[in-house]
Amino acid sequence: MTAPALKSTLVFAPIEGSVAAPAGFRAAGVACGIKKSRGLDLALIVSDAPASGAAVFTTNKAVAAPVLVSKARLRASLGHARAVVINSGCANACTGPDGHRTAEAMADAAARAAGVDPSQVLVASTGVIGVSLDRRCVTAGIAAAAAVLSRDGGAAAARAIMTTDPFPKEAAVEVTTAAGRFRIGGIAKGSGMIEPMMATMLAVVTTDAVVAPALLQRALTAVTDVTFNAISVDGECSTNDCVFALANGASGVTIGEGELDLMVEALRQVCEPLAIGIVRGGEGATKLVTVEVTGAASNDEAKRTARAIANSPLVKTAVHGADPNWGRLVAVAGRAGVDFNLDRARVQIGDVELFAGGRPFDERAPQASEHLQGADVTLRVDLGTGKAGAARMWTCDLSAEYVRINAEYRT
Amino acid sequence: MTAPALKSTLVFAPIEGSVAAPAGFRAAGVACGIKKSRGLDLALIVSDAPASGAAVFTTNKAVAAPVLVSKARLRASLGHARAVVINSGCANACTGPDGHRTAEAMADAAARAAGVDPSQVLVASTGVIGVSLDRRCVTAGIAAAAAVLSRDGGAAAARAIMTTDPFPKEAAVEVTTAAGRFRIGGIAKGSGMIEPMMATMLAVVTTDAVVAPALLQRALTAVTDVTFNAISVDGECSTNDCVFALANGASGVTIGEGELDLMVEALRQVCEPLAIGIVRGGEGATKLVTVEVTGAASNDEAKRTARAIANSPLVKTAVHGADPNWGRLVAVAGRAGVDFNLDRARVQIGDVELFAGGRPFDERAPQASEHLQGADVTLRVDLGTGKAGAARMWTCDLSAEYVRINAEYRT
Repeated sequence: MTAPALKSTLVFAPIEGSVAAPAGFRAAGVACGIKKSRGLDLALIVSDAPASGAAVFTTNKAVAAPVLVSKARLRASLGHARAVVINSGCANACTGPDGHRTAEAMADAAARAAGVDPSQVLVASTGVIGVSLDRRCVTAGIAAAAAVLSRDGGAAAARAIMTTDPFPKEAAVEVTTAAGRFRIGGIAKGSGMIEPMMATMLAVVTTDAVVAPALLQRALTAVTDVTFNAISVDGECSTNDCVFALANGASGVTIGEGELDLMVEALRQVCEPLAIGIVRGGEGATKLVTVEVTGAASNDEAKRTARAIANSPLVKTAVHGADPNWGRLVAVAGRAGVDFNLDRARVQIGDVELFAGGRPFDERAPQASEHLQGADVTLRVDLGTGKAGAARMWTCDLSAEYVRINAEYRT
Repeated sequence: MTAPALKSTLVFAPIEGSVAAPAGFRAAGVACGIKKSRGLDLALIVSDAPASGAAVFTTNKAVAAPVLVSKARLRASLGHARAVVINSGCANACTGPDGHRTAEAMADAAARAAGVDPSQVLVASTGVIGVSLDRRCVTAGIAAAAAVLSRDGGAAAARAIMTTDPFPKEAAVEVTTAAGRFRIGGIAKGSGMIEPMMATMLAVVTTDAVVAPALLQRALTAVTDVTFNAISVDGECSTNDCVFALANGASGVTIGEGELDLMVEALRQVCEPLAIGIVRGGEGATKLVTVEVTGAASNDEAKRTARAIANSPLVKTAVHGADPNWGRLVAVAGRAGVDFNLDRARVQIGDVELFAGGRPFDERAPQASEHLQGADVTLRVDLGTGKAGAARMWTCDLSAEYVRINAEYRT
């Protein structure tokens, strides 16, 4: 089996389900009393067979206990993971040594309940910062979840990791290659707040392909860069962000060293809709905004500009108000700290060019405004350097509802 | 006269007035029809005698025509400037070669009207981007302003540079030294929007001290760093930002090379209240927030952290809601890309310590919330590196009113 052969017959077919869609995975979501609302707040995902594990963690230096525990276990297991346990309702962050012990206990309880080696458990939490996670609740929840693990449990798991997310995020794909079929499934939660404290982006992706730990890690890092790391709701970065991937090989289809690109593309089929789902469900969001930057001196400069636009409150409020305010896009591109040529720059809202050759085309503003009325908005900026650097990001608009959600006192 | 002698008797006394408070300066503000509201929209400030000139400009690469013209003239005059002309209502940015000619014509008209050399005129604009500035309006306005220049014209000039600023910003101080008295006065406008497009921070500072151009430039750069560059309303940077300083020597008090610190401190007496005024008048602002960062590895890292906090929508909405949400401060400090030690970090809201030694003190939340109810809020974060890097920034809260102002369609 060679890479070209695999690729020549490559077909991606979206399928129902999520983390339990690939063969040999079971999942569950239960309520164990962490959330005051008594909603689902504990998810367990287990592979029936040994599996490779990979993870991408928050870059925040105020890192939460579960992140430290997951990092340590993934290192100890040399990149193997058979279970993921996640609670919502409490971030177990800024909780000192006791919080660290709770995260360890949570992973150990999941190992016992799922019958796997303790080093092969990844753990994550999301919710209020600085509040102790109730160890008894979590332990009881893990036992309850283990008892109901099933091939149909993905939907409950997707709900159990939500905080103020308005809807669960699930996706799955079946990949057909010359060597056979394999599946990838995933769940994610977004930047919502709970009671309302800074929340967290979490995602779990499973696959029944055979992927060695190092290759899985490279593929996960690469796909995260263009999906979960290419979205922004409000430019914040949590203490608890995690993306986990498990590959248990149950399909028998082997992804070799030469097929990294194929694996990244296959993962992207699941991670991109999950990432976009997070943005659509962003706090107060009424529109999905795709930001495309071209004509940059490098891809990195393009990404920096796209990020500046995606995080600009002036751009996000203009989109919210359906104001075809190309001047704000020019101004943000100009301050992004990258190569920029005003005389050659171009700005498009949807397919409507509003600025080019150093001059505006304000007579086209009504068409641009019409595009902005929709739920899906595209903003395109060419930096005019004459080079080919390009990047894409997704963000949402900034509404008064965002302020309301985040200004309310948390008790 | 030596520096120590000057300093030993240094007294700063706030006085009435602004740019025309120092001897030998006159100012005017008139309405010339650029603003649809027919409000004051053109300011002229003239020194009766030759004067040193200095300027700090926007770092935005999408730079407006008046910025380019002011830079060129200040270079041509070798750091001398006798007149400043500013219009509001139109930024003359992204207006191509014709906009550039208009900015040149505006400076030339001011030179003629004030009877000064054309190279000694600084020009600035603020308002809508991408709209042509009406040359006839501006030229007529300059003639009208020149006819009413007076020692009492500072207040009208301060009003004439406003866009959506809720109030004018003026300040002046009399400085008593062993060598005699001199005065400094200034006006500024803030980050408001006009009709509503990205607006601009503008400030003009005058003094009757004798200050050589190079020294004035160094002092202005230094004071801007700790005043106008230490504020943020929404993290945006305009195409038109300018701070101008003129020193005409009319007081006869000479500031020598060794007295840079004194001059910076004297300028700060005027620039700090102007900068704080801009924040208080920020769009939708209901609170002035002072962010103090200590315990950083360097002053630069402290400033980077203070800026991240000042621009965090989660922090700004929490302050708006009087939510003592120290977790958001920890999380932003952790993602600021600087040295940070969670176990030694400390967070104070007002004088109330809410997080230290790796653990929260949530029982003090009610006192912190009380502090946050006020109009003046202080947030203090010690990064726990054990080093002495420190910085201070001023910002405002983020309200639903900000979204309303910026989401409205501009026509």
